[in-house]
Amino acid sequence: MINIAIVGYGNIGKAVEEAIEAAKDMALCGVVMRTQSLNKPQVNVPVVDDITKLSTKPDVAILCTPSRTIAEVAEVCLAHGINTIDSYDIHTGIWELRERLGIAAKKAGSRAIVSVGFDPGGDSVVRALFEVFAPQGQTFTNFGPGMSMGHTVAVKAIEGVKNALSITIPLGTGVHRRLVYVEPQAGYDFGDIAAKIKADPYFVNDETHVYHENNIDSLIDVGHGVNLVRKGVSGRAHNQQFEFGMRINNPALTAQVMVASARASMKQPPGAYTMIEIPIIDMLDGSKEEIIRRLV
Amino acid sequence: MINIAIVGYGNIGKAVEEAIEAAKDMALCGVVMRTQSLNKPQVNVPVVDDITKLSTKPDVAILCTPSRTIAEVAEVCLAHGINTIDSYDIHTGIWELRERLGIAAKKAGSRAIVSVGFDPGGDSVVRALFEVFAPQGQTFTNFGPGMSMGHTVAVKAIEGVKNALSITIPLGTGVHRRLVYVEPQAGYDFGDIAAKIKADPYFVNDETHVYHENNIDSLIDVGHGVNLVRKGVSGRAHNQQFEFGMRINNPALTAQVMVASARASMKQPPGAYTMIEIPIIDMLDGSKEEIIRRLV
Repeated sequence: MINIAIVGYGNIGKAVEEAIEAAKDMALCGVVMRTQSLNKPQVNVPVVDDITKLSTKPDVAILCTPSRTIAEVAEVCLAHGINTIDSYDIHTGIWELRERLGIAAKKAGSRAIVSVGFDPGGDSVVRALFEVFAPQGQTFTNFGPGMSMGHTVAVKAIEGVKNALSITIPLGTGVHRRLVYVEPQAGYDFGDIAAKIKADPYFVNDETHVYHENNIDSLIDVGHGVNLVRKGVSGRAHNQQFEFGMRINNPALTAQVMVASARASMKQPPGAYTMIEIPIIDMLDGSKEEIIRRLV
Repeated sequence: MINIAIVGYGNIGKAVEEAIEAAKDMALCGVVMRTQSLNKPQVNVPVVDDITKLSTKPDVAILCTPSRTIAEVAEVCLAHGINTIDSYDIHTGIWELRERLGIAAKKAGSRAIVSVGFDPGGDSVVRALFEVFAPQGQTFTNFGPGMSMGHTVAVKAIEGVKNALSITIPLGTGVHRRLVYVEPQAGYDFGDIAAKIKADPYFVNDETHVYHENNIDSLIDVGHGVNLVRKGVSGRAHNQQFEFGMRINNPALTAQVMVASARASMKQPPGAYTMIEIPIIDMLDGSKEEIIRRLV
């Protein structure tokens, strides 16, 4: 059995707990939370504020804290010989995180798999595979329709916003429409807030519609989707066409991929990796013979 | 530069030559053919009947000979320290081939990647990835519409068949229709041949239509396709939906995946592998940093 600790217990943390429960080769050995007062997990394992306080030492820590906290939280785990899985999703910082965690991991003989989940994560594997199929050509990643966590957080950070939701609509060829629903705080003007949203770096380049909505919760649906297309050249043959799509409960998919990567982390040499650097078979439960006979 | 030899020069061999030409990090160092009289390649490299006769020792041999010859041909290469890539496509024998070539490869310090191409190959990677996304559920592989090499060969082997073509039509949920076009030899009855085809193990379980056609070549189109769908469970979330499709020139796709796997073979420890055991990044040309920054 692989012993797993969950660090951070929001939507993803809860979904990770469910995915661990469904995995025959894994056991949850603890939950690590900074504030133990709110939203306490209903689990039969220790809940602590420091991973070193767990009586069973985890083999892997699945980090479900915000992206900006990942480097620091992961370094502590790695230094204690605990592998880490994170869903760090700031695309421009992935290489740097991998470099930083690689140093900590190699020093302590542990492994980090960074940027695991929907995108970056599963989509990254598909984008890489599509370039194996056709090295020359163009790939478009079309997100949605579905709720964008990153854009929602960006709207909530704007002054005068009480609650918000940002939905991503795919218009094809990597172009997206943003539907933003906002509940203003008392005393703030909806028009001013809408203008600020449209000028925000997250929205300024996209077709953005902002709606006044006082019942945000009634719109929440964690379903999401992607349509990834590539048209390119294999050898000298042009017009090779590839397409990948999913329609999924987003936290459940993210958590499932993190749990599969936790399994894979046990089989890698010390160091830091992204998903495209890991053999996919290592993410699956079962013997090599059974998996190869069934899936290859 | 990675030096590659092509062993066997049919449709796939020619397509491999084109894919090598398009790859910046590879050079073709020779073609190995059993019969040098027919169909001699128009290439500026030595054409020999034995791989050991090449003046430049290949790093990798890409084997484009029929599946039943692969084990023997590969063992010779592996024993000489040459990595092998094959597109062995008999699904029931893949594990055994991997086991056999693994012994030869480890003994000589070389690497074999077996069953590389469309299916097994690219599709196998997608099937494995879909189980990472949703470990519980059902996957259907729907082939076509397109020409089935295996079924065409099976028809041609039936007594009284002069020329033939078998087209695969997807009916969904892994069920296929077979359209078979046959030119009978003089003195053979079309009705008898059609009955034999429908009773053949390749066709007996499928809806099969046999047509008399004396101009088979006018129907040939190496375009093919697949639609791979999975519906399953991530953690406790049911109804997770995944889909992959491609519409491709089949020999060009197969060759391209073989060439990418040749590259990957240089980065693995000695032994035998299927594609799902190889990190996808190893199949791509470029530095890890450039690839990760661009695709993850």
